Amino acid sequence: MQDNQEVIRRLKTTEGHIRGVQRMVEDGAYCIDVIQQIQAVQAALNKISADILDRHLNSCLITAVRGDDPAERERVLKEISEVFATSSKI
Amino acid sequence: MQDNQEVIRRLKTTEGHIRGVQRMVEDGAYCIDVIQQIQAVQAALNKISADILDRHLNSCLITAVRGDDPAERERVLKEISEVFATSSKI
Amino acid sequence: MQDNQEVIRRLKTTEGHIRGVQRMVEDGAYCIDVIQQIQAVQAALNKISADILDRHLNSCLITAVRGDDPAERERVLKEISEVFATSSKI
Amino acid sequence: MQDNQEVIRRLKTTEGHIRGVQRMVEDGAYCIDVIQQIQAVQAALNKISADILDRHLNSCLITAVRGDDPAERERVLKEISEVFATSSKI
Repeated sequence: MQDNQEVIRRLKTTEGHIRGVQRMVEDGAYCIDVIQQIQAVQAALNKISADILDRHLNSCLITAVRGDDPAERERVLKEISEVFATSSKI
Repeated sequence: MQDNQEVIRRLKTTEGHIRGVQRMVEDGAYCIDVIQQIQAVQAALNKISADILDRHLNSCLITAVRGDDPAERERVLKEISEVFATSSKI
Repeated sequence: MQDNQEVIRRLKTTEGHIRGVQRMVEDGAYCIDVIQQIQAVQAALNKISADILDRHLNSCLITAVRGDDPAERERVLKEISEVFATSSKI
Repeated sequence: MQDNQEVIRRLKTTEGHIRGVQRMVEDGAYCIDVIQQIQAVQAALNKISADILDRHLNSCLITAVRGDDPAERERVLKEISEVFATSSKI
């Protein structure tokens, strides 16, 4: 699926970014520069998460809310509440 | 509505908490103690937001997703994506 | 002290903002609008915390680091680490 | 340096974790499971950042604050304020 390829591509970029941070630490880079690069990785991961949630809302959520299984619907809505609550805590 | 009363009660508690922080600053409290109290207010606001979103998912969202208006459904899903994206940034 | 007055003024603004959010809930405002206002309050509190920490670094921290008491210095540095660690979690 | 080895080891673990998330996406894993793994990576990065800052406070900061160069001291304190302000925003 097209969208999955795009998510994988961005995760690979993030992986490369983290390898770059490792090299910075190996080379004795200045602590604050290392922290700023880690913060950049986190900002990129935030965007990836937000895009995955967006897709989820427009697919699984719609299916569950329109479906006939109230337990399934409740489960899907509860999961979204939980990832929102966690996102405020990290 | 019962739930609204509970949200208002918790917002009032938060308001009182912020007034308490003002008094701390007036009394020349130690900076770190002030910051920790502000962080406690933030944690409380996170929980209030998460609970309001939870209610929203279980009411407006269900109505919009089951409704016949695709523009309305899109709008509601987009809003949820946006509050999630913002929640990672504050 | 001048700076304290400014912090108190901004906390009062935040307190008024939270009272406004209570009125929104009382008036049955749309959930997403309420959440966005709470997020605005949190962004304001983040800035207030950051400014208080900035003052702290430029006063108490300097005194502690230059002082003769290693336990005091350790305590002050540990506190700063802790508020930083907490700030990532809320 | 011992501490650097430990930071590099934890960054390598994070890198492996992100590779695992890529495989999950390739295998068509459930969106919410993917988001939760990304959130776990972010929590790990938060801890690594906090530990690097802690080391920084106990080395560079002490040197700068005790040193004779007011511009250098100001720079170091400002950097810490900035990473704190950014940490509240991601």
